[in-house]
Amino acid sequence: MTVVGTANRAHAFTGALFEELARCGVEHVCLCPGSRNTPLVAAAVARPELRCWSHLDERSAGFFGLGLARASRRPVVLVCTSGTAAANFHPAVIEAHHARVPLLVLTADRPPELREWGAGQTIDQLRLYGTAVRWFVEVAVPERGEAALRYARALACRAAAQASGEPPGPVHLNLPFREPLEPVAVAGDVPEDLPPLAVDGRPGRPYLRAVAGPAAPTPELTASLAQLLRTRERGVVACGPLDATPDTAAAVAQLAGALGWPLLAEPTSQLRRGAHVGQAPLIASADLLLRDEPTAARFAPDCVLRFGDNPTSKAFRLWLERQRPADVVLVDPDGVWHDPSHLASATLRVDPQALCTALVRRLGTSSRRHDEWLDTFTDADRRAQAAIDETLAQDERLLSARAVRELGDALPERALLYVSNSMPVRDLDAFLRPSAKPLRVLCNRGANGIDGMLSSALGAAAAATGPTLLLTGDLAFLHDAGGLLAAHRYGIRATVVVLDNDGGGIFSYLPVAAYGERVGFEEHFRTPHGLDLGAVARAYSARFTRASSWEHFRTALKDSFAARGVSVISLAIDPEADVAQHRAIDAAVARALGAGRGGTR
Amino acid sequence: MTVVGTANRAHAFTGALFEELARCGVEHVCLCPGSRNTPLVAAAVARPELRCWSHLDERSAGFFGLGLARASRRPVVLVCTSGTAAANFHPAVIEAHHARVPLLVLTADRPPELREWGAGQTIDQLRLYGTAVRWFVEVAVPERGEAALRYARALACRAAAQASGEPPGPVHLNLPFREPLEPVAVAGDVPEDLPPLAVDGRPGRPYLRAVAGPAAPTPELTASLAQLLRTRERGVVACGPLDATPDTAAAVAQLAGALGWPLLAEPTSQLRRGAHVGQAPLIASADLLLRDEPTAARFAPDCVLRFGDNPTSKAFRLWLERQRPADVVLVDPDGVWHDPSHLASATLRVDPQALCTALVRRLGTSSRRHDEWLDTFTDADRRAQAAIDETLAQDERLLSARAVRELGDALPERALLYVSNSMPVRDLDAFLRPSAKPLRVLCNRGANGIDGMLSSALGAAAAATGPTLLLTGDLAFLHDAGGLLAAHRYGIRATVVVLDNDGGGIFSYLPVAAYGERVGFEEHFRTPHGLDLGAVARAYSARFTRASSWEHFRTALKDSFAARGVSVISLAIDPEADVAQHRAIDAAVARALGAGRGGTR
Repeated sequence: MTVVGTANRAHAFTGALFEELARCGVEHVCLCPGSRNTPLVAAAVARPELRCWSHLDERSAGFFGLGLARASRRPVVLVCTSGTAAANFHPAVIEAHHARVPLLVLTADRPPELREWGAGQTIDQLRLYGTAVRWFVEVAVPERGEAALRYARALACRAAAQASGEPPGPVHLNLPFREPLEPVAVAGDVPEDLPPLAVDGRPGRPYLRAVAGPAAPTPELTASLAQLLRTRERGVVACGPLDATPDTAAAVAQLAGALGWPLLAEPTSQLRRGAHVGQAPLIASADLLLRDEPTAARFAPDCVLRFGDNPTSKAFRLWLERQRPADVVLVDPDGVWHDPSHLASATLRVDPQALCTALVRRLGTSSRRHDEWLDTFTDADRRAQAAIDETLAQDERLLSARAVRELGDALPERALLYVSNSMPVRDLDAFLRPSAKPLRVLCNRGANGIDGMLSSALGAAAAATGPTLLLTGDLAFLHDAGGLLAAHRYGIRATVVVLDNDGGGIFSYLPVAAYGERVGFEEHFRTPHGLDLGAVARAYSARFTRASSWEHFRTALKDSFAARGVSVISLAIDPEADVAQHRAIDAAVARALGAGRGGTR
Repeated sequence: MTVVGTANRAHAFTGALFEELARCGVEHVCLCPGSRNTPLVAAAVARPELRCWSHLDERSAGFFGLGLARASRRPVVLVCTSGTAAANFHPAVIEAHHARVPLLVLTADRPPELREWGAGQTIDQLRLYGTAVRWFVEVAVPERGEAALRYARALACRAAAQASGEPPGPVHLNLPFREPLEPVAVAGDVPEDLPPLAVDGRPGRPYLRAVAGPAAPTPELTASLAQLLRTRERGVVACGPLDATPDTAAAVAQLAGALGWPLLAEPTSQLRRGAHVGQAPLIASADLLLRDEPTAARFAPDCVLRFGDNPTSKAFRLWLERQRPADVVLVDPDGVWHDPSHLASATLRVDPQALCTALVRRLGTSSRRHDEWLDTFTDADRRAQAAIDETLAQDERLLSARAVRELGDALPERALLYVSNSMPVRDLDAFLRPSAKPLRVLCNRGANGIDGMLSSALGAAAAATGPTLLLTGDLAFLHDAGGLLAAHRYGIRATVVVLDNDGGGIFSYLPVAAYGERVGFEEHFRTPHGLDLGAVARAYSARFTRASSWEHFRTALKDSFAARGVSVISLAIDPEADVAQHRAIDAAVARALGAGRGGTR
């Protein structure tokens, strides 16, 4: 009895729409205030099985929804009113497109007769997100009658399916409504004698079920790939950004072990930490090793088997571009073409876990015959890790590298780490120690923006089952400071660690840094702001601690996991000292590797 | 000698581009940090005649540029790096499109070979802003040689021309760059023997001058329109949002006087205040008069001559829809079709000032013959204004209506008032008294969003010659609180008056308010936030005053005009009391009008 009793055609339509969305597995809806979207808001609020989150700022709402969808691995609905509100979703929609996150974007609109005639809050919302959506629909203005309700139900189910694959991503439904917008009864709009299929759909299940399984590898593919891998002598398994489940991570690690190939795993692949660590030939220092030119030149791979998106490490990319391996095989469940270096020899559109399992079965354990290649890698990795430790052991200053190592140690089981783009994700890759203690790592590596970081992390926290921590720089923190409002309104628990170097630290590592005033380096690249982040955090009722020592940092972290609301912990980092320490670590790694080769540098 | 000495092809290209932009009249450039946009940033910074503003958040940068362009009436350049950065400009681009504001949006991009291959920070930026731009160009990757520099110069001039009309609006140049991005010398990239035309353009003038004058009315149009207006007996001149210069305002006012027609002028038309007031049959209370149904029914116009966009007043719109005047003539220099009620009988694509002047000359002063019609209007207007004054005189509470009247009195000569959408622009229309003291009023009435308000006002302040004041609600303030950072970094002077009713006041006036918890009214429509705006303002180093009385408010306003930086003055407004006072004023106006008709209500 969903629709009968609903007051008018618009609310009957949105009532049926949200009933189906819930039946398709949607749990969370982010709602932004407005008037034109009243039929959408009212329908979402009316369903007790949906958790509704109110947001003032649609940009924050978009990223909050993105974080929710990533953490929960389910489609999340965004709702806004007509006008620029919808354009504020655009950054999150683009990130969701590239990061393959299912978002259902429902924008209210004026009906066609009011568009392009100067009506208020009316813009061209058709294909507003361009090529960044899986599906765009200009939905019909709700009509009375049975057919409109069947349409609403089928539309919701199809939208959820389109958002879920393949690949997953955003879907945009543009929904025009005529007045009345409020749920006022309109005689004749929702007759009593509507058929049950229109009124209730198919109770207990979606109106329209979309079935599409992940692509399994054929025996032929497995055989030919096993054959290729066996013949290669210097292969590596590389893992870029990938939301691998523990089972997928274990399967990939097992394959690397069976091949006897080094497993280059960045934290955002989920393979740097987890139960598989210890059984796998894991290389945690790939970024640092390959920054050392003699090492990069010495390690000449003939085959790369890659899982996940293009790895974050620039050193890894340059290494492959210089070494030009005979085979670079990309494994991707959606067959996405992530290969900016144009080195791939094959892309395999198959389920990674199924492929790895099939390959391991095929290869057996007898295939390991490249121990020297692997040993060289693992020896270098061990030396690099020791060089980092030695450099940091002599240095009590609050700088980024140790912050990552401290964080890695402090994060409890079942923690979710959201990491910002720019330097934090690179520092995490360089410095996070491998560990059997699991850690889910999310990063907006779709478009690599620094926008929406707080909202993304708070959205993830809202769906997470354990503690959530965001590691961010100060610019990303400020870019989305308003995102803290969601935590203030809903009491969301999260820890935010800010590596505060008063500006964009990454620019100091770029060649442009050498040009100083000629290019406006300080004002227009590093962009120091001089703000007290504590005042900003407290304005949104977050707790704020400026760590004065590593001991203090550890205590603050521990306290934050037990505290209510958001705890912001800042490390005031001297940008020049941080650059110097990064270079010192590079040099120490290079020395250690040089010593390993028996040479001097 | 612009280009010789420039280090490589990318910087030569952007050097020529910015030289031409400056020669085309660009004065302000908003730069957002990034790496791919290095050639654009360096070229802008290198030109001393350009004022560069650094912004962390591209959304704020976009609106800051919008405010700058509106206040200065010149094209403003926005620059960002590749990725979601560009999407953050989208809301301001849409507003600029609808509000006809010239913006030159320069987005850096990766070159074609890196797009769609998983390279970092790479999205589809082609036609990113859809139909909201006058011109989109996928610019060529800079090549070496003379032809590329001629292209850069011609491109800049054409982009500036396209942004300037007709109508003015945003232009999007998507600029791909290959490495090196920094101004490092590349042998052979910029030869010494380039011809002077490529190296220097045409010194002292733009490379390519685009000439297009405003459309002047033909004698035939003037004659036929004068004939029409003479035959109508109950005409009104209505002015919607319009950035009228004082000369245009005077011409429109003179025409209304010559016709003897009431001049219904909302503040955003620039006709509510100015030197013309006193000589014109100005009606300041149209919104309140026409909310009174007996009055709206009694005033039956047979002709509307409209200048500017569709008026803000909903009562005005409903009045015309019910009265269906025989003629509704829209005058617009760009021939824009702003008529959501579909009542227009003619749209005239002519310069408003030229048309008014020609009509006045043609009509002479003898055409006034409808004194009774005008007298009825002016009498009603006088009664409405007196009713407002009487209602407010008995009430010392800090509520919106009086805030508008106090502001209107306090604003000095040459002030610029930026007013937020939602309630503030409506309250300004209802309550701002006419005055001969000029006041420029800007409002983002293109798409009517509440986003980007602080940035828009601060951008306007950065170009304004007198004091700038923003009148806003608390939700719009919070939506763009990060926009305050620009003032912190550049010491921009502005007064921000926040009508703080802890939520969206406008929703209480909508029918949905009656549905309460059933639609989630408090959480999802009114959206109270419970934040202390003072803490937010101070976090961005703005001064903050919470006015405790009207006396205190007046003092705070006066102090703010003399103070450095941003002064935020908040009025803590009880939302229920504010709704009640609005209704009390409506009732008082209705009583006064009823008495004027000799009837009782």
